Amino acid sequence: MEQIVTPEIKELVKRYRDIWTLDYALSLLGWDMETYMPANSFRERGEVRGNIRTQVQRIYTHPEFVSLVENAKTQNDVEKGIIRVLKRWIKYYTKLPKRFIEEEERTTAKAFQVWKEAKEKSDFKMFQPVLEDIVALEREKADYLGYEEHPYNALLDLYEEGLTVKKCEKIFSVVPQISNLFKKAKERYPNKHPLEDEPYDMIFLRRLIENILTTLGFDFSRGRVDVSPHPFTVEMGLYDIRITVRYEGKDFRRALMAAVHEFGHAMYEMNVSKDLWTTPVQHGVSLGIHESQSRFWENVVGRTRYFVERFHDRMVMALPFLKDYDIDDLYRYLTLVRPELIRVEADEVQYALHIYLRYELEKKLIEGTLKVNELPQVWNDLMDDLIGIRPPKDSLGVLQDIHWAHASIGYFPTYAIGSMFAAQLYEKLDMKHLIENKNYKEVMRNLRENIHKWGSIYPPDELMMRASGEYLNPEYFISYLRDKYLS
Amino acid sequence: MEQIVTPEIKELVKRYRDIWTLDYALSLLGWDMETYMPANSFRERGEVRGNIRTQVQRIYTHPEFVSLVENAKTQNDVEKGIIRVLKRWIKYYTKLPKRFIEEEERTTAKAFQVWKEAKEKSDFKMFQPVLEDIVALEREKADYLGYEEHPYNALLDLYEEGLTVKKCEKIFSVVPQISNLFKKAKERYPNKHPLEDEPYDMIFLRRLIENILTTLGFDFSRGRVDVSPHPFTVEMGLYDIRITVRYEGKDFRRALMAAVHEFGHAMYEMNVSKDLWTTPVQHGVSLGIHESQSRFWENVVGRTRYFVERFHDRMVMALPFLKDYDIDDLYRYLTLVRPELIRVEADEVQYALHIYLRYELEKKLIEGTLKVNELPQVWNDLMDDLIGIRPPKDSLGVLQDIHWAHASIGYFPTYAIGSMFAAQLYEKLDMKHLIENKNYKEVMRNLRENIHKWGSIYPPDELMMRASGEYLNPEYFISYLRDKYLS
Repeated sequence: MEQIVTPEIKELVKRYRDIWTLDYALSLLGWDMETYMPANSFRERGEVRGNIRTQVQRIYTHPEFVSLVENAKTQNDVEKGIIRVLKRWIKYYTKLPKRFIEEEERTTAKAFQVWKEAKEKSDFKMFQPVLEDIVALEREKADYLGYEEHPYNALLDLYEEGLTVKKCEKIFSVVPQISNLFKKAKERYPNKHPLEDEPYDMIFLRRLIENILTTLGFDFSRGRVDVSPHPFTVEMGLYDIRITVRYEGKDFRRALMAAVHEFGHAMYEMNVSKDLWTTPVQHGVSLGIHESQSRFWENVVGRTRYFVERFHDRMVMALPFLKDYDIDDLYRYLTLVRPELIRVEADEVQYALHIYLRYELEKKLIEGTLKVNELPQVWNDLMDDLIGIRPPKDSLGVLQDIHWAHASIGYFPTYAIGSMFAAQLYEKLDMKHLIENKNYKEVMRNLRENIHKWGSIYPPDELMMRASGEYLNPEYFISYLRDKYLS
Repeated sequence: MEQIVTPEIKELVKRYRDIWTLDYALSLLGWDMETYMPANSFRERGEVRGNIRTQVQRIYTHPEFVSLVENAKTQNDVEKGIIRVLKRWIKYYTKLPKRFIEEEERTTAKAFQVWKEAKEKSDFKMFQPVLEDIVALEREKADYLGYEEHPYNALLDLYEEGLTVKKCEKIFSVVPQISNLFKKAKERYPNKHPLEDEPYDMIFLRRLIENILTTLGFDFSRGRVDVSPHPFTVEMGLYDIRITVRYEGKDFRRALMAAVHEFGHAMYEMNVSKDLWTTPVQHGVSLGIHESQSRFWENVVGRTRYFVERFHDRMVMALPFLKDYDIDDLYRYLTLVRPELIRVEADEVQYALHIYLRYELEKKLIEGTLKVNELPQVWNDLMDDLIGIRPPKDSLGVLQDIHWAHASIGYFPTYAIGSMFAAQLYEKLDMKHLIENKNYKEVMRNLRENIHKWGSIYPPDELMMRASGEYLNPEYFISYLRDKYLS
């Protein structure tokens, strides 16, 4: 790894240490909130996190800090990466007025409560007014941030640096192919697998997960696996990266595959070069690249016959009911393809269709060609077209995701980028044989050397080019799916 | 509770919110370190905590902040308390040079490692050089902080506001009485109780502890009980206060009584008036007052026949081996008096003698009339005089405590204050009947109204006077012990 040599950038990194520290604390405060925090500390914890964010903003927008960033002359890629990342944050914190940020926070806090209740009652009308407020706010946000060609571009870039509607159109140009592929694949699978109803002993599944993650390469001296209502990964520093799992009591692949998914996120962070510790480029570069790593491990490595072969003995030991299922049964269980109303339950074939649907709706909401009150109808129609089922109620349709209540408009496309780039890496880094040979060490080395260790030094597109010799090309995803599900 | 009315003090409290927030984060970072943190994050976590402390110091020493504090005109007790507490912190952060704080940190980091090894090997000579450095540093610290009459006063005041050698001499004037009382009491007890060897099921003891703490008044919606190598209490905000317990597998009173002890600390913090939330006076005022609350619940409430009566049914359910022991057996087990070499294993009769010993040595080390290399000899002689046993090796004598390795010279006397003031509250707040009647709600109300709710508004001496009508008077402790152990 190149070293930081320019004195001004050394000074910046030194000052950045305060931000890095506060971010570390924010991560722990967030992790704790989802795992161990007592129920009634919710509001107090919100105050604490809000205040720390304000302290972070104050450092980013301090005139001396801004001027150091603006006048920095970079001498190598690491330095360029640092300045690029800092400029993005400074832009974020300086372009959005305090008033706006506070209003967004107020609105999303309210929206979360309303969404929860609306989803429970499956009543979109209840959620509609606050979602209208959110769409208006995000439209305003795009104006504050500035954009070319399409206001949605400003929002896309927040989650995936450099992403635009134009790039998304290319990414989603393969949607008809995926939709056809899905329709063919689902015919080959039963609509239900008996293992979905099989209850498991949580203690043993937990042990199995910890054991498999260790074999895959998780470093428990720098990480943990805990329990939370929704699985997630939290990266504090380079030496403390945690994932969580949810145990539902039956259908063990949910917990197991979620753990392998989060493992992929965690390894990206664990494998960043130690030279980048406490610098602005220490973390993974974007949600899309992050998701490519989690999906690589979950789908490309995990949902294979080879993975089942490798871990079959341990699985049977931890989950004795598996003695009645052979390796082929288990593989079919992990790769079951069937229409799903709910995104998070979708198999890897149809998943991108769920994303495309959300992308289309978000884009139109932001450009103003779709009204919030039209959402349920349009959602249901598009589900029918793409996947061939129609949500019987809005809780199973337009109300299913938390993202819009969080004002995370522009986030969804990163999931599709993840799936697609995982397939591209599989092909271009020649991982087929490694996965067949269960050589997880070498798989990890490949990902570490080509992706992980660089942190955020390179923007996503450039990283993709360097790692795979190409920008994102959805054709690899199509051939990956075709080979896996139609051959 | 009085309100904050002075505009300058309102402004100060507003600015203090940043410190309060960082302290909250530090507490969570510390709690996590002792409970769930992965082993190899130790150094990184140290960096994070050190950096946050520096950010706290920067706010306390900011000229505008200091000038607001110095020029504040207070209009009521709450405002007076706020300014008093802020002045103490500003003094601490401004009088100690950065160089000194860094050197103290370096030395204690090293000392902790050396002490651990020296204790394992029972080799005082190994610890001696670094302890000499620490004594020299603490002597220097006293000079930086300033003092009247005795340099030890500067250190005592850090842990117990206003404590001096003169006050300590009064406190410890009852040592001969305690020593005599102890020698008589120990004759009435066996040297060993069979329950000390009885192994327990940790899951059930944990359930019992959570259940008893709930009955005593712990609010689990604002707190937790976790496991750590050494029991402690951590107060983040008013809505998140956690304790930890250690389960050793046998001798259940250790875990149970430690939990009740920490419960006492936690309730002090939970019961602070919500009007003081996020102000500089939100936390308990001193270590001594804090310890009085923990010892009140552990000893004055917990180690009684009434406590055993109240919880006997549940104890037998959780710990089936108790069916062979009646209430009297259990009470004797909780109140066993016998000479102990180790402070943390000492009963409440001899405990203050262990503290007095440390106080005498610390005072002489700081005034220079005792050399570090003379410590083991003097320690052992004094143990013999006071308690009637002699440590066979230094790991059971002068090397047993972590405090000196932490440079916490001046800390020990607060434990004695805690024991003594607990007895004073027992007498002066007329708690005998409430405890006999197991009316824990009313016991708590008494403590909350007289002590807890005031946070740090009043300095310890004044709080004692307001709560009990007297300054600390060790005679109450003597009569409490005499009634309980010699009648």
